[in-house]
Amino acid sequence: MATDHENRPWEELEDLIAAEGRRDLQEYLDELEPGELGRSISRLDREDQRRLLLLLGPEGAADVIDVVPEAQGADLIEQLPPVEAAGILAEVPSDHKADLLSEMPRDEAESILEAMDPREAAETRRLIGHEPDSAGGLMITEYLAFPDQASVGDVLDDLRANRRQVADFSVQYIYVTGRRGELVGVLPVRDLVFADPETAVAQTMIPGPRRVAVDSQLDDLRRFFDQHGLLAAPVVDRAGRLLGVVREEALEEASTRRVTRQFLGFSGIVGGEEYRSMPLRVRSGRRLSWLSINVVLNVIAATVIAAYQDTLAAAIALAVFLPMISDMSGCSGNQAVAVSIRELTLGLVRPGELLRVLGKEASLGLINGLVLGLLLGGLAYLWQGNVWLGLIVGVALAANTVVAVSLGGLLPLLFRRWRLDPALVAGPALTTVTDMCGFFLVLSLATALLPRL
Amino acid sequence: MATDHENRPWEELEDLIAAEGRRDLQEYLDELEPGELGRSISRLDREDQRRLLLLLGPEGAADVIDVVPEAQGADLIEQLPPVEAAGILAEVPSDHKADLLSEMPRDEAESILEAMDPREAAETRRLIGHEPDSAGGLMITEYLAFPDQASVGDVLDDLRANRRQVADFSVQYIYVTGRRGELVGVLPVRDLVFADPETAVAQTMIPGPRRVAVDSQLDDLRRFFDQHGLLAAPVVDRAGRLLGVVREEALEEASTRRVTRQFLGFSGIVGGEEYRSMPLRVRSGRRLSWLSINVVLNVIAATVIAAYQDTLAAAIALAVFLPMISDMSGCSGNQAVAVSIRELTLGLVRPGELLRVLGKEASLGLINGLVLGLLLGGLAYLWQGNVWLGLIVGVALAANTVVAVSLGGLLPLLFRRWRLDPALVAGPALTTVTDMCGFFLVLSLATALLPRL
Repeated sequence: MATDHENRPWEELEDLIAAEGRRDLQEYLDELEPGELGRSISRLDREDQRRLLLLLGPEGAADVIDVVPEAQGADLIEQLPPVEAAGILAEVPSDHKADLLSEMPRDEAESILEAMDPREAAETRRLIGHEPDSAGGLMITEYLAFPDQASVGDVLDDLRANRRQVADFSVQYIYVTGRRGELVGVLPVRDLVFADPETAVAQTMIPGPRRVAVDSQLDDLRRFFDQHGLLAAPVVDRAGRLLGVVREEALEEASTRRVTRQFLGFSGIVGGEEYRSMPLRVRSGRRLSWLSINVVLNVIAATVIAAYQDTLAAAIALAVFLPMISDMSGCSGNQAVAVSIRELTLGLVRPGELLRVLGKEASLGLINGLVLGLLLGGLAYLWQGNVWLGLIVGVALAANTVVAVSLGGLLPLLFRRWRLDPALVAGPALTTVTDMCGFFLVLSLATALLPRL
Repeated sequence: MATDHENRPWEELEDLIAAEGRRDLQEYLDELEPGELGRSISRLDREDQRRLLLLLGPEGAADVIDVVPEAQGADLIEQLPPVEAAGILAEVPSDHKADLLSEMPRDEAESILEAMDPREAAETRRLIGHEPDSAGGLMITEYLAFPDQASVGDVLDDLRANRRQVADFSVQYIYVTGRRGELVGVLPVRDLVFADPETAVAQTMIPGPRRVAVDSQLDDLRRFFDQHGLLAAPVVDRAGRLLGVVREEALEEASTRRVTRQFLGFSGIVGGEEYRSMPLRVRSGRRLSWLSINVVLNVIAATVIAAYQDTLAAAIALAVFLPMISDMSGCSGNQAVAVSIRELTLGLVRPGELLRVLGKEASLGLINGLVLGLLLGGLAYLWQGNVWLGLIVGVALAANTVVAVSLGGLLPLLFRRWRLDPALVAGPALTTVTDMCGFFLVLSLATALLPRL
């Protein structure tokens, strides 16, 4: 049976870890398809995960960390003693290293940094200090730079001498710096094919190359790369000094990470990604932290129903529609929330353009409100044969849809302005307001029309 | 004021379009920051958008299409007469071209394909024919290949002669093919720096290079690239013939696109991305298509409440809790849905591993159910001073949380097995089942305990 076979890789891993044969283990991992590797490691218990990384040694462990998702990698390294963790991180490229440390709780990251080689630690701290989705946070500090006085021959000699390292950096460009470390030119490695070794680098280089400021933000960087068709760009500080190189790959990874965070935040997964291999305590606690805020918000919304208990008891058919109006309005509003978050992410709308979004969403809310109101009101009428019941339900849903859609469009812009994450807060805030408003509409209309129900 | 300034770019664009001065227009666009460009174009009305692209001519229009998000680009091209659309697409790289056409309704894409140069059309059809997130769907067909008999000197001459084109392709590797077009080697362009022009390509190349099969899927490709640190890989058919090249960049873009689709689908935005610049009719129709299915599902769930109207009328305080139980269970379940979708995407769980997910989620559901049940039950008791009311509400929420969390974890796996998109269907399906189950738990418990309420 398939299940039988599927169980094998991590059981095999458990055996190999127990046997403590490093060579056998490494060989087995090398043969494992990378997808299977991540899956198998996530199936090991914490103790075996720790022993696996220690057995592999820094280089082997770094290879494993490189293949698994970042949050999983951080989670694996966190479990190790700081000295071993620092040893593994020394084998990981600088941008990835900073990302991994940023995923960890601050004091665990701190104790790993303290165990690092001081120069490496200082550089890593500098990288972590930049905003994660800025050029500084995304750049690597492994790049090749030569002074403008060097000749093409010097560069070629140096490249040939350091061929292995160069291959590691996937170098496509060589940067040329002036006396104070300021960026003065760039030299595509493949252009060395056509260059005379005698000429000075300053003659062959493309002077004044495109560069990005260290505080440039992800969206601006992506558009810059798209526009100029670049694979990598040098990052400079205000004085024009070369600080690092940001690769297109890093930008795309950061974009995926950002949309993933939005998706998870929107679904109530907060405090970082959750994997089922994490301890139950952590998973349950994180989910509860979000749910318990939701309980409070729900209680607030429910007070509206509580205030109208007499009306509801007198016209009990309405109780059937309250959860529907709550759910439908929430859905309509969340569609608008998602469109706003998406347009904000793409830079198609600015947080200040409230009136434009309101205009676009209110008109859509009106149309959809009318359609949904007619539908649900019609059903209510058919069910009870009471035109007034249909009218109350229909009008309430229609009006509440306009509110929900308009508010859903606006809230992400407002939260962005207030520097709160729209993906996390817009949903719960929206549902609370639209629940209260929806319940109020149904029940106050019903109170006014009670004799006819 | 800021708003005043923010309005300017697209008003300027409108004026320039009205003046029909192509040079002025092109100059203005070139100066515009790319972010501003996408935003400004989305502010133009349909007629102005069409006139802008026609005024710019194929190359200028292709540059614009390249900078704006893909769905927006497809939306812009769709509006043009097929001949002009085909002219613009001729200037766009092959993978992007196929993506743009895939975003359009089938008959519009078809009429544009018919207007294309027949060879280009045939190639594009082949690209579209591959699954979008497979190596075939992601590859470009612009690459450099030389027969294994050529010498390094031949290659260098050819590169020098076609320098401009080569720069356009961002070529890093040259592929070497045998007599039947089969891939036999690869030659990093930068290695030409170290090679003797006299030697045969077959001597200098890296023989038997890493390659990917045309039907490899996105996740496997990403892990393959991660593992081997590649920027690009050749794509071959079953006979080993070179078909195209897939670049790491394309993989990362596809990942972002996929998570975006998940996020939007989860929020009820279906049928592709929505931009507020799209016609109201389209936006409203797409959102309604999803909402109307939701109305039906809501009605089904509400029949449970309808069946217990007498109980509800006799213990009206319960009506306050029904929407809360519906909302809370939905939230708990959706957290599990998001984690499952994420783990499926990362390949950390397989669609067949139902028992493992059930075990992980049921235990978490039990803990969170107990916490939430105690919380809400306690509140119910405090509010009405009736221990039985508290018990009913608490037990129902606790039990329903276990159901919601377990089901939320399982549904994405099941839907993936049944080849339905979990991000689209898992949410609505989950809410319907947990609503019914939650309402049933509260109301049947209440019916049994009615004398005590």
